[in-house]
Amino acid sequence: MEEAAVPPPPDIVRAAYAELVVTDLERARWFWVDLLGFVVTEADADVLYLRGYDELTHHNLILSRGTQPAAARLAFRVRTTSDLDRAAGFYRGLGCRAEHFPAGTTPGIGAAVRAEDPLGFTVEFFHDAAHADRLQQRYDLRRGAEVARLDHFNVTVPDVRAAYEYYRSLGFGLSETIEDAQTLYAAWMYRKQTVHDVAFTGGAGPRLHHLGFFAHESHHVLRICDILGSLHEEGHIERGPGRHGVSNAFYVYLRDPDGHRLEVYTSDYYTGDPGHPVLRWDVSDPRRRDFWGHAIIPSWYSEASLVLDLDGNPRPLVEVQQIAESTVGADGFPVSRR
Amino acid sequence: MEEAAVPPPPDIVRAAYAELVVTDLERARWFWVDLLGFVVTEADADVLYLRGYDELTHHNLILSRGTQPAAARLAFRVRTTSDLDRAAGFYRGLGCRAEHFPAGTTPGIGAAVRAEDPLGFTVEFFHDAAHADRLQQRYDLRRGAEVARLDHFNVTVPDVRAAYEYYRSLGFGLSETIEDAQTLYAAWMYRKQTVHDVAFTGGAGPRLHHLGFFAHESHHVLRICDILGSLHEEGHIERGPGRHGVSNAFYVYLRDPDGHRLEVYTSDYYTGDPGHPVLRWDVSDPRRRDFWGHAIIPSWYSEASLVLDLDGNPRPLVEVQQIAESTVGADGFPVSRR
Amino acid sequence: MEEAAVPPPPDIVRAAYAELVVTDLERARWFWVDLLGFVVTEADADVLYLRGYDELTHHNLILSRGTQPAAARLAFRVRTTSDLDRAAGFYRGLGCRAEHFPAGTTPGIGAAVRAEDPLGFTVEFFHDAAHADRLQQRYDLRRGAEVARLDHFNVTVPDVRAAYEYYRSLGFGLSETIEDAQTLYAAWMYRKQTVHDVAFTGGAGPRLHHLGFFAHESHHVLRICDILGSLHEEGHIERGPGRHGVSNAFYVYLRDPDGHRLEVYTSDYYTGDPGHPVLRWDVSDPRRRDFWGHAIIPSWYSEASLVLDLDGNPRPLVEVQQIAESTVGADGFPVSRR
Amino acid sequence: MEEAAVPPPPDIVRAAYAELVVTDLERARWFWVDLLGFVVTEADADVLYLRGYDELTHHNLILSRGTQPAAARLAFRVRTTSDLDRAAGFYRGLGCRAEHFPAGTTPGIGAAVRAEDPLGFTVEFFHDAAHADRLQQRYDLRRGAEVARLDHFNVTVPDVRAAYEYYRSLGFGLSETIEDAQTLYAAWMYRKQTVHDVAFTGGAGPRLHHLGFFAHESHHVLRICDILGSLHEEGHIERGPGRHGVSNAFYVYLRDPDGHRLEVYTSDYYTGDPGHPVLRWDVSDPRRRDFWGHAIIPSWYSEASLVLDLDGNPRPLVEVQQIAESTVGADGFPVSRR
Repeated sequence: MEEAAVPPPPDIVRAAYAELVVTDLERARWFWVDLLGFVVTEADADVLYLRGYDELTHHNLILSRGTQPAAARLAFRVRTTSDLDRAAGFYRGLGCRAEHFPAGTTPGIGAAVRAEDPLGFTVEFFHDAAHADRLQQRYDLRRGAEVARLDHFNVTVPDVRAAYEYYRSLGFGLSETIEDAQTLYAAWMYRKQTVHDVAFTGGAGPRLHHLGFFAHESHHVLRICDILGSLHEEGHIERGPGRHGVSNAFYVYLRDPDGHRLEVYTSDYYTGDPGHPVLRWDVSDPRRRDFWGHAIIPSWYSEASLVLDLDGNPRPLVEVQQIAESTVGADGFPVSRR
Repeated sequence: MEEAAVPPPPDIVRAAYAELVVTDLERARWFWVDLLGFVVTEADADVLYLRGYDELTHHNLILSRGTQPAAARLAFRVRTTSDLDRAAGFYRGLGCRAEHFPAGTTPGIGAAVRAEDPLGFTVEFFHDAAHADRLQQRYDLRRGAEVARLDHFNVTVPDVRAAYEYYRSLGFGLSETIEDAQTLYAAWMYRKQTVHDVAFTGGAGPRLHHLGFFAHESHHVLRICDILGSLHEEGHIERGPGRHGVSNAFYVYLRDPDGHRLEVYTSDYYTGDPGHPVLRWDVSDPRRRDFWGHAIIPSWYSEASLVLDLDGNPRPLVEVQQIAESTVGADGFPVSRR
Repeated sequence: MEEAAVPPPPDIVRAAYAELVVTDLERARWFWVDLLGFVVTEADADVLYLRGYDELTHHNLILSRGTQPAAARLAFRVRTTSDLDRAAGFYRGLGCRAEHFPAGTTPGIGAAVRAEDPLGFTVEFFHDAAHADRLQQRYDLRRGAEVARLDHFNVTVPDVRAAYEYYRSLGFGLSETIEDAQTLYAAWMYRKQTVHDVAFTGGAGPRLHHLGFFAHESHHVLRICDILGSLHEEGHIERGPGRHGVSNAFYVYLRDPDGHRLEVYTSDYYTGDPGHPVLRWDVSDPRRRDFWGHAIIPSWYSEASLVLDLDGNPRPLVEVQQIAESTVGADGFPVSRR
Repeated sequence: MEEAAVPPPPDIVRAAYAELVVTDLERARWFWVDLLGFVVTEADADVLYLRGYDELTHHNLILSRGTQPAAARLAFRVRTTSDLDRAAGFYRGLGCRAEHFPAGTTPGIGAAVRAEDPLGFTVEFFHDAAHADRLQQRYDLRRGAEVARLDHFNVTVPDVRAAYEYYRSLGFGLSETIEDAQTLYAAWMYRKQTVHDVAFTGGAGPRLHHLGFFAHESHHVLRICDILGSLHEEGHIERGPGRHGVSNAFYVYLRDPDGHRLEVYTSDYYTGDPGHPVLRWDVSDPRRRDFWGHAIIPSWYSEASLVLDLDGNPRPLVEVQQIAESTVGADGFPVSRR
């Protein structure tokens, strides 16, 4: 691999927003806005632009009406406008399709470049964004999980090491891993000064495993579960609340009406220092996924959202090439560690 | 003292509800319902019947439209219907005016006896009450301070010892006091198994110092303050949040648009055992009122709500006959301990 | 049934303490005291007397060294000393063995009566108890789960309805049930003004399912799980944290080194009013056991502590005579509802 | 102002640690370690090196035995080792004294440059630091306020605008201000992606107003107050707990045995995006300092720690040249806004 031949990557600031295709926009609005409490920045008949209460740009999440549930794109904010050309050059240098989009293609977002990345995801890069009203101190408006901001994308990929190498080439730092002597089972990587902007879960991919949203305190995580139970909608709670070993997050995983998964979490940590040390979890430590030792339910490992290419077509899945975290034993035989 | 001559008191279960006269019912509704999150059980043009989310009877609070802010009555639930006659007899035996009211005089409340008690307050006793919808697990409906239930009445009286003796004759237990060798400055007394159903603050009286409402966790107390700040209505926050030495409650005191004071608190304790030991605070311990040592603002000591007699007329105030807690020094000279 | 022939029951105040036999007292001390943070009131080479931070009597829990894990007795405090004779009479009237024990038989506890109750449990009744230091406001001493007080005994019995009828005859109120048209699967019953002092889980019995301890806030429940994970002792976390439908408790179930189960919970509710309405959960509502809809792990249903008779011998188990909650379907066929 | 003539500043990563001189190291240890729960990385007879539970470098705080309480230095971590020379050049370019110190001068810290900055503070810059044990998930060890990490330095200066201009020249971003049409009363500035690494309070200076430490949840802030009250050490609680308008922090201010002030806070927000918008508070908004509208006690405005020069001598104070925030009215006349 002659990495030197690849043009320099864009200077990515952070995971900024995602677009999810939902099949019933009214039902999606009920879930994300009425129950979870996301703020509606803008809406039309077919699209909702949502954000958390701390978010100062236009949106963290786009919900678009469509015929099949999918993750249409994952968008990153970049440092300067010149990073757009750099992004286009970087992906084309990798042999990937990349296209420019003028400002306003997405409401509230300036000029952008979208690319089909080597992992099979449609990623977007933008610099300019409209500012949204500052609602952090509008406690009178808060509802549901009181989500503050988007934190990260967790993607399901068949080859975690390849995903790690690709994001390393994009300048991401590594905060934590699940591994053993032979295999990298999962990795958490960051640009902003938190544990991650992206993370990788092994499995047939490319798929979006979940969107991670930060809330300020653990009682916010409990509250959304209680609200869902109150309405007999507890089926939307897939896993947790619990404490992750990795990242130290106190988390819950929810599934939206189309099956898209989100995490609401709190209590990760600062990673901004130079030489930030990597925390490596052994795949045999039951606390890596759940610090309290609980089994992980199978759907959390097996299910994830399809992703779309630049033309809006679903990406075919590539099956896992390596032994998955959930089925390899300390002795090398496949046994469940969930 | 020929106590034997007084007929036996009614068997009081707990402080059940209060009626407050407010001058602007729409504004009161905004404060108590829209901001604080009280549940409306029933309403008409001139009266609101409100309750907390755990309350299983019709109401904890009546807000009635009137021309002058006042506390119209303090109502206690009694064990049996026969306790109504016992209540009437008890007060008449004390030389107090007492009257029977048929079921339905107050919506949701059965037959009742009201009396003008020796301290000058209009108190009511009832047994039957309509059940309200069980909302404790309707987390989807919770707003504001997420108040669970009424806990206690705190009354301002010029003679705390007299108030203590009167409530002792009513069968109340004593949980905590503020005192020194000579003087009882304040007392907390209970029928249900919490720290208090009634408490006494020294000052010109009879006046209602505050209504105390229980919330389940400290973050509920913080939330209502944040909501008030968000709306630039922080002037309604009079004192706290803070921790009381007495009762261990984590509290905040709010003032409604008419100046009526309420406390939202959490974390008191069980008092139901026989021989429950009294906790006696020395008046010189700064932690008695605020466990964190902070000064108490003057209005908290000086202001309180007028009370009405059985005919709805304001009770004249009797000035303090003893040295108040806030102005007596360890050396006997009047100095502020706030 | 000639109930009139049975002498009147003692006036029970509350569930007061339990005695557990543990096989390794040093290890038990590590778990209950060092990790969970229970307060040691008194200790000798073979016995520990423990209590929560709010407890004002000598102990809530006795841990005794023995050769086989077991629950030796469940102790209730009674209203007056005359309730001791009443207790003895009541049980003898039921044909049960009952014995008097002089004050001091148990450190900190006055004269007592112990009986083998109709369900097969050894129960104790006492009135007098030594007061312990008031530690509620010694936040400097708090550790672990910061348990406040013992709240309830949950017992496993083969016939839940029989257990309900027996405790009803002892004057207990009924707060909640799990049932269907034919069967009472579980019941929660109280003397003090909380949801329960005793509860019944269907299964081979008599066995002690768990001891329930109250903590003031949900973050205390989370903390003890985090502490156990920190020490790689997460295997002691059996179930939760989660929210019960029944009782609204936010709970976690832990297992001690001998397998004895305890619950640390917060957020139940007041039940002290006359005519307190029963909350009846349908056995088909998945929220009854976990408000968030999660499956209950099998050990929680199947495992429990043996109990001892008055001579210290283990009670033989009686298998379930009715269809258990966990295995009966809405259609009457045995399917898992966990 | 020929800014171009000043050499480029070092690339500062964050506020990293402070050194405080204390007159009674044993008493300081009791306060910071035993009560507040700071972790001791290293100690000798005259110095303590302390850190929070999330901190991954050697220390956040040095406590040194001395004869007079003072803040000896404020240390910033820089991006690369070459930033050390840049720091020396930058300060010398400003006409300030700057000196190099070899690795190991401070345990756990590599080569460093210290300078007397234009505001009169001794500041240090370092790149290399020894890693400390990762304790974030050692919940079993946590005590006191469970402080996670140092967040910021708040300094008292007579000319806030000059301080703002100086830190702007060092590359700091501006997150929030208190101002009116004429005057900048206070400012919050950052390098890492939180609200601040430094902030300025108007007053006689140079003095250290406080060190700000981050904790993860509001109950940690309440806990340390309860612990101090428990030990009758509530005099160490100077202000709060409360919510700041500025930064949204839920805070408490404590004073150590030498009068050094620290803040423990939670719930600020992410500032890492390009073009992060400044939040400007009007000096007449009572919520700027306390979102709940409470008065600020005078000592919080008037008291602060002396600072030392490079030779360890106290810096003389320069009195305020502008009208202070706390004494200027909307009409220009000096009235208290506290």
